Amino acid sequence: MTSDVIVERLRRLGLELPPQRAPRHPYLAARVDAGVLYLSGKTATLDGSVQFAGPLRTAEDIEHGRKAAVLCALQVLAGIEAAVGLQRVHSVLRLTGYVASAPDFVSQPDVVNAASELLIEVLGGAGQHTRTAIGVAALPGGSAVELEATIRLIPEADQ
Amino acid sequence: MTSDVIVERLRRLGLELPPQRAPRHPYLAARVDAGVLYLSGKTATLDGSVQFAGPLRTAEDIEHGRKAAVLCALQVLAGIEAAVGLQRVHSVLRLTGYVASAPDFVSQPDVVNAASELLIEVLGGAGQHTRTAIGVAALPGGSAVELEATIRLIPEADQ
Amino acid sequence: MTSDVIVERLRRLGLELPPQRAPRHPYLAARVDAGVLYLSGKTATLDGSVQFAGPLRTAEDIEHGRKAAVLCALQVLAGIEAAVGLQRVHSVLRLTGYVASAPDFVSQPDVVNAASELLIEVLGGAGQHTRTAIGVAALPGGSAVELEATIRLIPEADQ
Repeated sequence: MTSDVIVERLRRLGLELPPQRAPRHPYLAARVDAGVLYLSGKTATLDGSVQFAGPLRTAEDIEHGRKAAVLCALQVLAGIEAAVGLQRVHSVLRLTGYVASAPDFVSQPDVVNAASELLIEVLGGAGQHTRTAIGVAALPGGSAVELEATIRLIPEADQ
Repeated sequence: MTSDVIVERLRRLGLELPPQRAPRHPYLAARVDAGVLYLSGKTATLDGSVQFAGPLRTAEDIEHGRKAAVLCALQVLAGIEAAVGLQRVHSVLRLTGYVASAPDFVSQPDVVNAASELLIEVLGGAGQHTRTAIGVAALPGGSAVELEATIRLIPEADQ
Repeated sequence: MTSDVIVERLRRLGLELPPQRAPRHPYLAARVDAGVLYLSGKTATLDGSVQFAGPLRTAEDIEHGRKAAVLCALQVLAGIEAAVGLQRVHSVLRLTGYVASAPDFVSQPDVVNAASELLIEVLGGAGQHTRTAIGVAALPGGSAVELEATIRLIPEADQ
């Protein structure tokens, strides 16, 4: 599957890859090691500005959290595209979804599902993943969600 | 060590592997990649229903948390058995223990120890692991504990 | 780069590797698998005693948190030295920085930056890393920060 096909699938969903910029902080956006792509944590930002803030408190906040999760997933996809190209995703080894949560909010899976569903919808079988969903006290810049993804790549020679 | 020996060790401890079911959510229970087994996060559930709820608040809650950690560890073992068979565990590369915690509760290691001890007791040296223990705001369904495990497998030809 | 050079760089910064001791708990301090070093979580402790407590609440706590992050980074470096020797660091695959945070504190990156900067200052390019910063409810022993590091090693034959 080429990167163009994936971007077209997003477009049909009314979505697009957000522009990437180098981290403002002293770390790498991505690293490839032994055929595995490690991506730095992605929050619900556009151009560095948080679009969906946490914490989530009640069931009525789930939809807000799902929008945050979709934006985080778009940031993951854009991070892959910038680092190696979306056509190189073989499989998602692990996705950790951190959800800024009040102590009574325990619907983290419903929130992170929005990210999981998008990855599978646009990447197909390559987007399937193991997952851990966690409710945390707070996230950088007040983001409602943060995603950490680790991805097995297709060897360049096999594309 | 065969899977039967491990199940028998559990039985002598009065424990058994909980039944596994496919995740209700859009992710994989497990994935094998390059000889490593990635398991999705495991909460303190039976048949999808949380048995030990958080958050933990005081030292008196440690024992409750340890029961949760044991059930999570049983879910990890059952997840391994369902994915590849317990006889294939070479070593546990990393265990992350998330403990739903009030801000004053800082005994996460005492809680996660119950999981660590069980893994070592039933898997022997193969159950030894590096570990990170974290206190979080809330966990899926209100679980008191969640475990994420990454496991090196014995190659199938070497069993 | 030899281990001595790295220790000397720390000395010029007025820092030194803290003494390591075996975990009091039933887990491994470190494990090497397939050329990757997995380190257990490191809190802001000396001889097992927390030096910088959380949670962080306001912007005025950032400096306190940065001191905690530096001590955690020193514990990571000391853990590498004890396990395999600092000269064997090829690259840091992933650094997860957990910051004990009140719900309103969202400057986790500013805190974890102190650890990122130290790793790069003393290890050079080998210290560069992908990163995830998270605000959590509480950490073991009340530590303000905990770091989890995963490191690619230089093969012993190539040193």
